Amino acid sequence: MPEFRQDPLTGRRVIMAPERSERPIQVGTGQSLAIGDVDPFAEGRETETTLEVLAYRAAGLAPNGPGWSVRVVSNKYPALQRQGNHTLQQEGIYQSCDAVGVHDVIIECPQSESSLARLSTKQVCEVLKAYRDRLMALKEDRRLEYAVIFKNHGAGAGASLPHSHSQLMALTLIPDAVVGMRARALQHATNLGRPLFDQMVAQELESGERVVLETPDFLVFCPYASRFAYETWILPRHPACHYGEIEPGQLGELGALLRTVLRKLDVALQDPPYNYLLQTAPLQIGDPVQDRWRIEICPRLTGVAGFEWATDCFVNAVLPESAAAILRATDVPGPA
Amino acid sequence: MPEFRQDPLTGRRVIMAPERSERPIQVGTGQSLAIGDVDPFAEGRETETTLEVLAYRAAGLAPNGPGWSVRVVSNKYPALQRQGNHTLQQEGIYQSCDAVGVHDVIIECPQSESSLARLSTKQVCEVLKAYRDRLMALKEDRRLEYAVIFKNHGAGAGASLPHSHSQLMALTLIPDAVVGMRARALQHATNLGRPLFDQMVAQELESGERVVLETPDFLVFCPYASRFAYETWILPRHPACHYGEIEPGQLGELGALLRTVLRKLDVALQDPPYNYLLQTAPLQIGDPVQDRWRIEICPRLTGVAGFEWATDCFVNAVLPESAAAILRATDVPGPA
Repeated sequence: MPEFRQDPLTGRRVIMAPERSERPIQVGTGQSLAIGDVDPFAEGRETETTLEVLAYRAAGLAPNGPGWSVRVVSNKYPALQRQGNHTLQQEGIYQSCDAVGVHDVIIECPQSESSLARLSTKQVCEVLKAYRDRLMALKEDRRLEYAVIFKNHGAGAGASLPHSHSQLMALTLIPDAVVGMRARALQHATNLGRPLFDQMVAQELESGERVVLETPDFLVFCPYASRFAYETWILPRHPACHYGEIEPGQLGELGALLRTVLRKLDVALQDPPYNYLLQTAPLQIGDPVQDRWRIEICPRLTGVAGFEWATDCFVNAVLPESAAAILRATDVPGPA
Repeated sequence: MPEFRQDPLTGRRVIMAPERSERPIQVGTGQSLAIGDVDPFAEGRETETTLEVLAYRAAGLAPNGPGWSVRVVSNKYPALQRQGNHTLQQEGIYQSCDAVGVHDVIIECPQSESSLARLSTKQVCEVLKAYRDRLMALKEDRRLEYAVIFKNHGAGAGASLPHSHSQLMALTLIPDAVVGMRARALQHATNLGRPLFDQMVAQELESGERVVLETPDFLVFCPYASRFAYETWILPRHPACHYGEIEPGQLGELGALLRTVLRKLDVALQDPPYNYLLQTAPLQIGDPVQDRWRIEICPRLTGVAGFEWATDCFVNAVLPESAAAILRATDVPGPA
């Protein structure tokens, strides 16, 4: 059973998950395997994963067999498990508890394709719909307080399997980092009389220097204090706490936009490794002053190193204004 | 001029240093260059660096020429600069100031060698002495509040040049992460009547399961809530706030110990990329309840990925108890 431990000095929580040391690593090992030969996520190999918790396939087809477009399964090497005891155990100065929660894998396409950016807009929209459907389903389990969906693309971004996929982790606690962000957003609104996210959108649109793209509902920009070179956020222009409550009509706009942004990064930076994070309000609470869901795309061009681990202060060699100018000027083919 | 920016949502500080995008990258580019052919840190190439701020060489030899054992220079592509205005600039919801401070490179040996673990114990001790001497010198500049010394070894740990070196960054502020640690340590002592570091040393020695090595003055152990697999700390057993105040006699013990620990990691993990951080009390303050200097060695075996960026909560697939058992059992040759 994986276990949460808390560091007494920093307060930081770490999930100890020795089960994960047994997972296969197919990315960045130096071996040049054809992805299709060893791909446990490909259509026709459904028995190589755990049973699906969600899948989109034509009516009449049986679950856990072929014919799907997106498939969500439990992680075979989970960092969190659904059953367990989340009472704190004290051992001298140290504290731990079972790491209770959900750890899903979202398999983004049936074919052996390694890049979300190379899928069709329709397929990207299906992936974004699966994110929504899983968040809405997990919200029903009242023990779960917080969920994050993320993608690790490429060995340099921590991916272990090449087949295009993302992950969802849902916890029985709200991470301190999220508690801290919400408190800052509340403080901002109390001090300045206007929600932080509203002011951020207004200021970015007015200056325009960090804007990559805008659509009726979304703003794409490189944030003012980007941790990573070419970090790019997709943020709803209007209040929107829970990604799970996104309108069906917005899914189409978001899918086309995400695909365009990923393709711009691919062209400008030659298919970089990246992480993206879908940050959204805690599952059981949320208000427009403290929460706005967003997708944070973090290219991983240089290593995070000693200074960052010591100080939690990042060094970024590319100004977000320069990154945005380059991404604005990068042409990519239109929706397909 | 590099600039500190603060993220309004997380409060996190980022140093924007576009100057650093011009630095040469010789590690992990896929080119197999012989290190000696292109090594700007080798003896005889002193003109390829900035002027030295500290060097150990025989009496009578001229500065900035050959004959040195350890040499400290200013980083040619600095993330911090000595002169500047650290008044906050406000631009709407965003804040910035000049990134004032010191950014040194500690060149650890005159020959083109890429690994500190392969240097002699005497040479490792010289490096540790240079750390001490620089910290004591920088303390005299009362604007400087905090300094961290760190090493990035290998491309996977963010190194750009292979020649064995470490870096020192000194800031005019104490990072929030350090402020937070000190506050937690104080709270711990207030609540429990005993300093956290004393209790940590006592508990680790008593249980022994996470201990790798102990010497009269130091404890080497894998911390209870290690962020990284095989993370290993060297911690003084007795109160010691400022590394700069280390006794000359302790430098020998520490040098032999650091070399042994790095060699154990090299053997057990096949020369892994790693970062190490020398955390020490803030330059102008410090007390035994809140501060104890330490060296935190962080092997970088797997990527830090989306979940960590979203939550600041780490997933570690190797229990520190297992890592310590393996490192204890790993034999390395004695001091040389």
